[in-house]
Amino acid sequence: MLVTLKPHADAACVQAALVRLGLWTERLAGDVGVAFAIAPHSAAAHVNELRCIEGVADVFCAPSQHPRVDAAGAVKAVSGVAFGSAPVWLAGPCSVESEAQIEIIAEHVARAGAQFLRGGAFKPRTSPYGFQGHGGDALAWLRRAASRRGLKVVTEALSERDVPLVAEHSDLIQVGARNMQNFALLREVGRAGRAVLLKRGVAATVREWLLAGEHCLQAGAASVLFCERGVRGYDDVTRNFLDLSAVALLAHVHKVSVVVDPSHACGRRDLIAPLTKAALAAGAVGIMIEVHHQPEAALSDGPQALRPDELAHLVEAVKS
Amino acid sequence: MLVTLKPHADAACVQAALVRLGLWTERLAGDVGVAFAIAPHSAAAHVNELRCIEGVADVFCAPSQHPRVDAAGAVKAVSGVAFGSAPVWLAGPCSVESEAQIEIIAEHVARAGAQFLRGGAFKPRTSPYGFQGHGGDALAWLRRAASRRGLKVVTEALSERDVPLVAEHSDLIQVGARNMQNFALLREVGRAGRAVLLKRGVAATVREWLLAGEHCLQAGAASVLFCERGVRGYDDVTRNFLDLSAVALLAHVHKVSVVVDPSHACGRRDLIAPLTKAALAAGAVGIMIEVHHQPEAALSDGPQALRPDELAHLVEAVKS
Amino acid sequence: MLVTLKPHADAACVQAALVRLGLWTERLAGDVGVAFAIAPHSAAAHVNELRCIEGVADVFCAPSQHPRVDAAGAVKAVSGVAFGSAPVWLAGPCSVESEAQIEIIAEHVARAGAQFLRGGAFKPRTSPYGFQGHGGDALAWLRRAASRRGLKVVTEALSERDVPLVAEHSDLIQVGARNMQNFALLREVGRAGRAVLLKRGVAATVREWLLAGEHCLQAGAASVLFCERGVRGYDDVTRNFLDLSAVALLAHVHKVSVVVDPSHACGRRDLIAPLTKAALAAGAVGIMIEVHHQPEAALSDGPQALRPDELAHLVEAVKS
Amino acid sequence: MLVTLKPHADAACVQAALVRLGLWTERLAGDVGVAFAIAPHSAAAHVNELRCIEGVADVFCAPSQHPRVDAAGAVKAVSGVAFGSAPVWLAGPCSVESEAQIEIIAEHVARAGAQFLRGGAFKPRTSPYGFQGHGGDALAWLRRAASRRGLKVVTEALSERDVPLVAEHSDLIQVGARNMQNFALLREVGRAGRAVLLKRGVAATVREWLLAGEHCLQAGAASVLFCERGVRGYDDVTRNFLDLSAVALLAHVHKVSVVVDPSHACGRRDLIAPLTKAALAAGAVGIMIEVHHQPEAALSDGPQALRPDELAHLVEAVKS
Repeated sequence: MLVTLKPHADAACVQAALVRLGLWTERLAGDVGVAFAIAPHSAAAHVNELRCIEGVADVFCAPSQHPRVDAAGAVKAVSGVAFGSAPVWLAGPCSVESEAQIEIIAEHVARAGAQFLRGGAFKPRTSPYGFQGHGGDALAWLRRAASRRGLKVVTEALSERDVPLVAEHSDLIQVGARNMQNFALLREVGRAGRAVLLKRGVAATVREWLLAGEHCLQAGAASVLFCERGVRGYDDVTRNFLDLSAVALLAHVHKVSVVVDPSHACGRRDLIAPLTKAALAAGAVGIMIEVHHQPEAALSDGPQALRPDELAHLVEAVKS
Repeated sequence: MLVTLKPHADAACVQAALVRLGLWTERLAGDVGVAFAIAPHSAAAHVNELRCIEGVADVFCAPSQHPRVDAAGAVKAVSGVAFGSAPVWLAGPCSVESEAQIEIIAEHVARAGAQFLRGGAFKPRTSPYGFQGHGGDALAWLRRAASRRGLKVVTEALSERDVPLVAEHSDLIQVGARNMQNFALLREVGRAGRAVLLKRGVAATVREWLLAGEHCLQAGAASVLFCERGVRGYDDVTRNFLDLSAVALLAHVHKVSVVVDPSHACGRRDLIAPLTKAALAAGAVGIMIEVHHQPEAALSDGPQALRPDELAHLVEAVKS
Repeated sequence: MLVTLKPHADAACVQAALVRLGLWTERLAGDVGVAFAIAPHSAAAHVNELRCIEGVADVFCAPSQHPRVDAAGAVKAVSGVAFGSAPVWLAGPCSVESEAQIEIIAEHVARAGAQFLRGGAFKPRTSPYGFQGHGGDALAWLRRAASRRGLKVVTEALSERDVPLVAEHSDLIQVGARNMQNFALLREVGRAGRAVLLKRGVAATVREWLLAGEHCLQAGAASVLFCERGVRGYDDVTRNFLDLSAVALLAHVHKVSVVVDPSHACGRRDLIAPLTKAALAAGAVGIMIEVHHQPEAALSDGPQALRPDELAHLVEAVKS
Repeated sequence: MLVTLKPHADAACVQAALVRLGLWTERLAGDVGVAFAIAPHSAAAHVNELRCIEGVADVFCAPSQHPRVDAAGAVKAVSGVAFGSAPVWLAGPCSVESEAQIEIIAEHVARAGAQFLRGGAFKPRTSPYGFQGHGGDALAWLRRAASRRGLKVVTEALSERDVPLVAEHSDLIQVGARNMQNFALLREVGRAGRAVLLKRGVAATVREWLLAGEHCLQAGAASVLFCERGVRGYDDVTRNFLDLSAVALLAHVHKVSVVVDPSHACGRRDLIAPLTKAALAAGAVGIMIEVHHQPEAALSDGPQALRPDELAHLVEAVKS
C-alpha cells in the first residue's frame, strides 16, 4: 500500500496519523513530493479511512487476488458439523492400517467427543519404499467406521485420479502440505464441489496459501478450511515451526476458518496439549490430531500420535 | 541420543517400545549389530527407562551443556513479584522519551495491573541515524516513575560499560535479541548478580538460547527469564515468526520460565490480544508488551504499541 | 552416523582421528562407555576407514534410502547431448506464448550455442487468474521450433494427465519446484521412461530432493538431472536463496548431475551472469536460463529473462 | 520504490517499460489513478531513467540509509595489500593455541601465498565451558608470527574493552557474526579508525549488514570489508547456507568489497575448494579460510580446517 501526499501537506502529521492506525511507514521522496510506503506487517486498515487523513492525496493498493476467499469468509458448517462456536475435533490415525484398526480408533475418537474421523488411505511418503496406504479399501473401511458412530470423514486425495473416489467416501477432502501448490490437484479437488481442508505448504506464505484456496473455490469447492501444520524452521527440537501468528491473522483479519494440526507441527507428543490450547486461543476453530490405540505399532508417525485416553483428557481440559 | 541393541535382540520390539514413548527412531546398521538414533524432536524420555527396555544394550546421550539452567529451574520471584501463578505483565513504551512521557505511561500501566514498567534508555538501532535513547537520564526517570507506583523496572543494557548503571536502576536487566550471543555483555550482566530477561536471538536455536542463559548464570546472574520475541521468518505479513512451540518446550520440558513479547513478534497491534492469550496457553508466565498513550508520537515502534485502554482491556480479558 | 568405542579405548585419540577426517563429533556417554555422534555436515567418510581406527568398536550408519540415485551416478547424455564436459545450456522463454515467439527465440538460442530449448506449455501459477499456458498447441510449436534447429526440448509436466503428451514432445521432462513432492506426478513422469529435470522444492532438504529423484527412478525414469533454482529465504533483495553449497554437495559428494537456474534463484537480470559463473565453479553441469527477445512483452517472469544478445555474451564469457 | 502515473497514461506501456529494465511490478489502484510498486528483488535502476518513461508522473524512493557505505565504495587496500585485482587470502587457525602453533601455521600460510594471517585470540563460544582463547598473549604471538613473514593480521574483537589492544596488534579488526548488531562494539571498533572485516550476522538481511557497516564508518572506521560466512538454513547437510547471491549483489550492485569464508559457510572440508572458486566467480575479492597443520589437535573447528598442503593446492588452482 502506498500513500501519496498533497503538495505542502505536513508529512509529519500524516505519518503520525498513519502510525496511530498501527501502520509501519517508510518515507519515500519523489521529484516533487513525499509518499509513504506501508509495510505488509501493519495492522489492517480501511483505505477510505486513510484517504480522509488531512494532507493525503491518494492511497494506492493492490486489489485482492483472492476475491472468492474474501467473499466466502468463515465456514459455517461441513456436513452438518458447525464450525466457529465450540472447537471441532478431527482425530484418527495417520494411516488407515486395517478395518479392525480403524474400527477401534473410530470408537475411541467418537467417545472422546470428536466430530470428524481422519485417516490416510493414500499416503504421501518422502521415500518410495515407505508404506503407501491401502487406497480404495481403506476409504471404504474409514467411511463405514465413521458412519456407524455418526462421525464425518476427512481424508487426503493424493492423485488427481483418486479425487472422485475420495470425494465419494469423505465429507472433507484434505489437500496435503506437499500438494498445496499442485494446481492440477487443486482444480480437480475443487471440481468435486466439496469442502476442502487445505494444509499449508511446507514453506508457503500466507498469500500463497490464500491463493491456493482461491484455486479451489474458483474450480467449484463448496468451502475451504485452512489447516496450519507447521512450517519449515531451522531448529530441530520440534519437527516444524508452528506459526500461530498466521493463524491469528487468518482468523482475525482475513476472517477465514483455520484448523491447526499440532501433531505435525511439533512432532512431539509431550507438547500437543499446550499447543492445542494455544492454537484455540489464537483463533483456530478446529484441531486435527493424530490418535492411535497402539502408537508403537503405527505404520507411520507413531511418536506424534496421542493415545485415546490422552485425546479424551485433552478434549475435556479444553471444555473446562 | 543413541540406543544400541544386544546381540540377537528383536529390533522391531525395541523400536516399538521406543515409539511407544514418543521417540522418533532411525535404524542404523553396524558391522555386527543394530542401533537406533533418536531424533531431537522426540518427546523427552528418561535414559534409565530406555535402558530397561528388553534387548537394549546401552543408551548414549550427551550430557547437558547447561547444568546451571537445569538446576535453577523456574524463576519463583523477581524483586518480590511472583512468577508462575498469575501472569506477570511487563509493560511500557519502547523508548523512555521524556520524564513526562514515562510518568503518564507508568500511571496507566500501574492502573491496568502490570507489575513491571519497561522502557528503553539505551536503544539498539539498525541505523546509526535513529534515536539512540536518553541513556542515564532515562534510567533515572524510569526508576522514579516506577517506584512511585510500586512497579518494578525492566530495561535493556546495550553496552558492557552501562551494565552497572542499568543494574542500579532496574530489577530485571534485559539483554536484547541482537545481543543474545554477545558473550562479553552476557558475562558483564551476569556479574551484576541480578535477574536477567534474556531475549531470544533473531535466529537462535533453543539450545543456543539455553546456553546464553548458562553464560549469564555462570557469571553470577541471580536468575534468567527467557523471552521469546519472534524469530526471523520468510513471510512479511508479520514482523517475525512467533515460536510458541519453543515456549511450550521451555515451559513444559525444560521447566524454565518464559516471557513472551507479542509486540515484537508480530509487529501488528491487531494481533497482540489473540497472541497474548495463545502465549499464556502455551506456558508463558509473563507478557512483555509495548504501551504508549500516544503511539503516533512514539520515537520508535509506535505501530506495535497498545494504547493504555487496550492494555487494561487485555489484562481484564485474560483474568476472566 | 555413530561410532562406539571399545572398553578402555582412548576417547581423545579416537576423536582426534575422526576430526582428522573432517568429521564433527559430539561425545555421548553410555552407562559403561563412550560413543561419538557424527554431525550430518561432516565431510564424507568411508565407514570401513572409521572401523579401522584404533579403539573403535563399531560404526553404525543408516543405509542409503536412495539406492537407485546412488547407483545411477552422473548423467552422461540426454538425447545425444553430453553432460559433464562443456556446460550445457537450456534456454528459452518462461512461457511459450505463440508459434512466432518460440520460433524467434529458438533461433536466438540456437545461435548463442544452447543445446536445449526450454518453454512452458503448462504453467504453474500462484494465482488462478494468471496465464496458464497454451497447453498442447504450445508443445507442438516448441518441438517444431527446436527440431528445425537441432535443439532438444525441455518442458514441464504439471498434471499427471499431461505426462504422455509432454513425454511425446520433449527430450527432458521438467518437474517444477512446487511439485517436487507431488508423488503421483513423480510416479507418472517416471513411468514415461524419459530423462527428468527435477527442480528442488521451495524449501526441500537435499535428502528430500534425492528421495524425489528416487521416486522417479523407481518408477522407470531413464535418468534424473537435479535442478537448483533457489530456496525460500528471509531476505527480499533476491527472489530466492541460491544454494550453491547444495550444488557442490550433489556434484562432488553424491556425484549426481546438477543444473542451476540462476533466473529463478535471484530473479534479477543484473546478477544472472556472475551467478552462472559461480554455479559452474561449484560443480553444475548445465545452466537453465530464461531468454526472451522482448522481455517487456513476456506473459510471465519478464524481469528475470535475459535478452538474446545477453545470453550469447554470457555463453561466450563462460567459454573463455 | 513506487512509480505513479499521469492521468490518462497508458498503464500497460509504462509497465512494459519498467519490465524491460528488469523491474518486478505490482499494479496498485488509487482513487483516481494507477501506480506501480517495484519489488526489492528487481534489477537496480536509475530513478531518472524511470522518470523519463512516457506516462510516468513521479518516482518515489527511500533515500539510502547508508550514505557512507555508498560513498566509500570498494576497498582499495588494507595495510598495503591491494583488494580487487588478484584474490586476497586470509588464512590461519580458528584459534591461536600457542606461540609454536601460530609460528608453524604462519610459515605454511605465507608459503602458500596468503597475504593475511588470521587467528582468534578472543573466541566467541556458544558454551561458557568451551575454550575462550589466550587473549592478549595470543595477540602478541599472532602479530610476531605474521610480521616475521610479511603477513598482515586479521583477528576478532569480542569485547568493547579489548578493542584498543586488538587494534594495536592487527591490520584488520574482525567483528564476528554474532556481534554484527552489537552496536556498542561496532562504535568502539569504528573509533579505532582501522579497517574492519564485518561478518554477516547469522540471519542478517543485506540491508542490516550494510547498516552495520554504516555504524562502523560513522564511528570512524577507515574502511569496511563485508564477509559472508553463511546464514542460518533449514538443512543440516551443510553447517550454514552460503549466500552467493548476496555476494554478487554487494559486489556488482552495491560495489562494496566482499570476502567469503567458505569454512564456516559449509563446515565441510570436502566442499571448501569448489565453494572458494564459486565465491570468486560471484564477485568476492578475498577468501578467509581456516588452516591448521594438525586439524585433529585443534581446540576448535578442526573438521572445517584445511591442511597447509590443501591450502597451497587451492591457491594454485585458483591462479591457473
